[in-house]
Amino acid sequence: MTETARTPTQVAQQWLDAFEEVLQSDEPAQAANLFEDYGFWRDLVAMTWNIKTLEGRTAIRDMLEHTAKRTRPCQWRVSEDATEQDGVTEAWITFKTEDALCKGHLRLRDGQAWTLLTTMQELKAFPEKRNFLRPKGAQHGASKSRQTWLEARQEEERELGYSRQPYCVIIGGGQGGIGLAARLRQLDVPTIVIERNPRAGDSWRNRYKSLCLHDPVWYDHMPYLPFPEHWPVFAPKDKIGDWLEMYTRIMEINYWSSTECTGARFDDDRQEWVVDVVRDGERITLHPKQLVLATGMSGIPNIPDIPGMECFEGEQHHSSKHPGGEAYRGKKCVVLGANNSAHDICAALWENDADVTMIQRSSTHIIKSDTLMDRVLGGLYSEEAVQGGMTTEKADLTFASIPFRIMPDFHIPVYQQVAEQDADFYRRLEEAGFMLDFGDDGSGLFMKYLRRGSGYYIDVGASELVASGDIKLKSGVSIERINPRSVTLTDGTELPADLIVYATGFGSMNGWAARIINQNVADKVGKCWGMGSDTTKDPGPWEGELRNMWKPTRQEALWFHGGNLHQSRHYSLYLALQLKARKEGLKTPVYGMEEVHHLA
Amino acid sequence: MTETARTPTQVAQQWLDAFEEVLQSDEPAQAANLFEDYGFWRDLVAMTWNIKTLEGRTAIRDMLEHTAKRTRPCQWRVSEDATEQDGVTEAWITFKTEDALCKGHLRLRDGQAWTLLTTMQELKAFPEKRNFLRPKGAQHGASKSRQTWLEARQEEERELGYSRQPYCVIIGGGQGGIGLAARLRQLDVPTIVIERNPRAGDSWRNRYKSLCLHDPVWYDHMPYLPFPEHWPVFAPKDKIGDWLEMYTRIMEINYWSSTECTGARFDDDRQEWVVDVVRDGERITLHPKQLVLATGMSGIPNIPDIPGMECFEGEQHHSSKHPGGEAYRGKKCVVLGANNSAHDICAALWENDADVTMIQRSSTHIIKSDTLMDRVLGGLYSEEAVQGGMTTEKADLTFASIPFRIMPDFHIPVYQQVAEQDADFYRRLEEAGFMLDFGDDGSGLFMKYLRRGSGYYIDVGASELVASGDIKLKSGVSIERINPRSVTLTDGTELPADLIVYATGFGSMNGWAARIINQNVADKVGKCWGMGSDTTKDPGPWEGELRNMWKPTRQEALWFHGGNLHQSRHYSLYLALQLKARKEGLKTPVYGMEEVHHLA
Repeated sequence: MTETARTPTQVAQQWLDAFEEVLQSDEPAQAANLFEDYGFWRDLVAMTWNIKTLEGRTAIRDMLEHTAKRTRPCQWRVSEDATEQDGVTEAWITFKTEDALCKGHLRLRDGQAWTLLTTMQELKAFPEKRNFLRPKGAQHGASKSRQTWLEARQEEERELGYSRQPYCVIIGGGQGGIGLAARLRQLDVPTIVIERNPRAGDSWRNRYKSLCLHDPVWYDHMPYLPFPEHWPVFAPKDKIGDWLEMYTRIMEINYWSSTECTGARFDDDRQEWVVDVVRDGERITLHPKQLVLATGMSGIPNIPDIPGMECFEGEQHHSSKHPGGEAYRGKKCVVLGANNSAHDICAALWENDADVTMIQRSSTHIIKSDTLMDRVLGGLYSEEAVQGGMTTEKADLTFASIPFRIMPDFHIPVYQQVAEQDADFYRRLEEAGFMLDFGDDGSGLFMKYLRRGSGYYIDVGASELVASGDIKLKSGVSIERINPRSVTLTDGTELPADLIVYATGFGSMNGWAARIINQNVADKVGKCWGMGSDTTKDPGPWEGELRNMWKPTRQEALWFHGGNLHQSRHYSLYLALQLKARKEGLKTPVYGMEEVHHLA
Repeated sequence: MTETARTPTQVAQQWLDAFEEVLQSDEPAQAANLFEDYGFWRDLVAMTWNIKTLEGRTAIRDMLEHTAKRTRPCQWRVSEDATEQDGVTEAWITFKTEDALCKGHLRLRDGQAWTLLTTMQELKAFPEKRNFLRPKGAQHGASKSRQTWLEARQEEERELGYSRQPYCVIIGGGQGGIGLAARLRQLDVPTIVIERNPRAGDSWRNRYKSLCLHDPVWYDHMPYLPFPEHWPVFAPKDKIGDWLEMYTRIMEINYWSSTECTGARFDDDRQEWVVDVVRDGERITLHPKQLVLATGMSGIPNIPDIPGMECFEGEQHHSSKHPGGEAYRGKKCVVLGANNSAHDICAALWENDADVTMIQRSSTHIIKSDTLMDRVLGGLYSEEAVQGGMTTEKADLTFASIPFRIMPDFHIPVYQQVAEQDADFYRRLEEAGFMLDFGDDGSGLFMKYLRRGSGYYIDVGASELVASGDIKLKSGVSIERINPRSVTLTDGTELPADLIVYATGFGSMNGWAARIINQNVADKVGKCWGMGSDTTKDPGPWEGELRNMWKPTRQEALWFHGGNLHQSRHYSLYLALQLKARKEGLKTPVYGMEEVHHLA
């Protein structure tokens, strides 16, 4: 009777109180019984020093048996009014562990936990120096020979990597490496970012000229310094380049531009890396304790091996090397591939009056950008969400609160609506011969991105050109042979060609480990990305989290960081905390490291 | 009876309803009767196209007679819960005029208005493109030969000032000019900022090396892009320099660095300025419609004319040219002056083992930085205020809501507490011979700043050195004569000197008008800053607002912008709106232009 009178907040707090009581008992693992039989506990570093989803009571029980007595989670509190809808009580929560202040999110059904998210936010002993703890800046009072801020920065730049070793080296100074370095700076973890290009932001600037972000601004904020209110919804690449350059400077990142990493190996005896770099022509060897590859989640470009390639008399390059459409006015261009880059490149070529044919080998998921914003992202990442009180942090945590196993259940109905809403658009594409899909299970864009990082295009205009025939389309075929001035397709068609663009995607990030370290380490670590969903290009077994991303790998002191701006922002916190804890010598026993199932 | 039952919000709304009814009647000026006999209405552009405080019913009535039928203010609403304390009901309000969306603040006593603040926030016809109106960035859909963001920026840089004239030229690219230019950019007012130094931020970088902001971070935010949460409380000068450089780039300001303005004149026939500049050695003439001097509120350095100066064999310079203490190790240094710069320079010299004597000619107001933060600024500008929900905008408007006439009444009791709290500190300074004051009427720092822009030091450590005698002090004297290697004071003392620093302040900003335009225009405009309080260095008659700042002057199309970071941020909005309105050809009849009473 009193049941119905309780507020959602009371319901959630009561569950947390019961949960805490068991966690603090002699048998904390019995807290698993407070979950549904097939409830989920997703943990970002707080309990496991890993990124891990436990599925079902047995898995939860096992995790608690290994972690609860050490982490001693306590003070579980509902942190703002909980809500109840369709029988699900949702609550934002805070708690503490032995080492850290934590936040989380709870979903209850019939008094049992359906999903629990737990995330480490701050190490108790090493809080970030912000807000009340921000540095004073001026040292009030007078003292002889004080060092100014500028002198301290200059000394650091002079010494770090030379007379003083960084604790961490990040290879790759795109948005991922920069955002992680910003967090490490705030945590006082001496870090150097290695970037091949001359200026921060060049990895954007160097792309084809019409490129804009495909994700909207609310999704794209960097840590600490959000974009201002007038920032464009889809920022042009050079503008993002400028932002990253300025961000790097303002966040006081030790950013070695014009620097190439020529090799790295882990010295088991000294328990540190030996990283060879060439900085502005000078060879330097760095000895960090931790090495992060932030070389782009895309890994190394896939270039297919097609008979006759070597004899082609026109120009051919991978999409990542494509300079834009201007140089190809009036030329005959063949673009192999039908995903994001292929569409963008085809459209830019068409805009420059090239004759362009897209070769679609297999089906592609297409979603209109506006529809993506309205139907998929809008609830968390939009101006409406912001005006409704949604913060970037809360949006990220909400997103993180849904275990990957059940994420398709949330997405499938949304994409059914998408298909209905844009039925005419999809019909016209199919009439033009375009092969469409919504993912193996109809779960759409984001699941495809998580499972395989490919196979889709967020339509910002190119699809209309495909539908209209302005971009010529050959689908269900590939290139069988390359001739000096043409390509022959698998259906026998011959297309004259001055330019061939291979928009054929990228390998796994561990390809970078092979290139920079060696193949043994790449194999020991195994494939990055994907979660074992047993769908196209994401072979099983099920792992439940992205492989090797932002968490310990099978190679000691080697980490992978990357993803889109949203992921880089969100997961850089957890990676930074893992690195900080190791630097400070905290015990960081990793629970639930996965076996390596795939080499690449 | 029902009186006591009404909430403060109801009380305020009821007043606003009555106010609106009279304003919309045939005799809107009768709305003055809803004020106390000596109530105040402070208007920032909304009613008067001026910055103006009306004091008393008669003044308010006159203003309404001239403005109400044109501006037609309406829809006066309490915008969040009003409060009541000590018999004063306070409310945040919104309203609209014919041209603009406006905000304000109201204080009622016994049902009558004690103070009303009205501020223009946005021109209805020209809203800023932010939040829901932010640009899309990517132009979705394909079109031949579209221009990218980078190409558009490059074209603008190539053309503006050459083949296309800016509407506005701002002379001076410090924080004031930069912040104003950022607002004008958002309002689509083509603007060029002229700055002598090579890089934005150099006006800070070039100062003495230990300089940090004397105001805390919460007070110092620039428009649109607040400092991040880990920004130091008192930012070091080079860090602020970097921020300004980054800000200038990110806000897409047309910033002509390494450019000097060699002269300007207003062409009455063409109704535009002729501004001669030398940009990187090249002579260019600009023809803007509006000219803003943002050359620093300090104006041109005052250097006293002392017999013997020309024969001095050591080094002598104004404080604004002082390079820092390092070069003067072991030297005998005399610093003339006892305000902020004098203290900072003396401390830096002492830190570098110079022998330093401060010459205090007249009394100085000293307040410890910590005390200033705790007692004076903390309620509006502090981490506590932020955590309590105070925003920068609301803090600025709260500050603006207090008419200058009665501001001393608010400050005097605070400074009495300051004097008590730090009694021991002040006693030790006086024992060292230092001449202290709290302003003519005991109203302390900020009133001194507003009245004369000088006569104080925010103590960040130098006072302790004065009290201890580490900085030697000669007070109540000046320099009578300068000898080749010494100075002779008015009390006959002779001090050996290798260096003389003239920390003797600055002239009025209209000195810049004299230098850049001509003396006639400078005299026509008259003195800048100060409000006619009839206190030391702020001669009457009373004007009630800072002279010539951020508002129309007696020289058509000439504007002065400046002040500390707080003022630059806050008033740049109103100046930007005045310029935008003129650009768009809105009618902007100025009410209540003051007579010129002082030439400098």
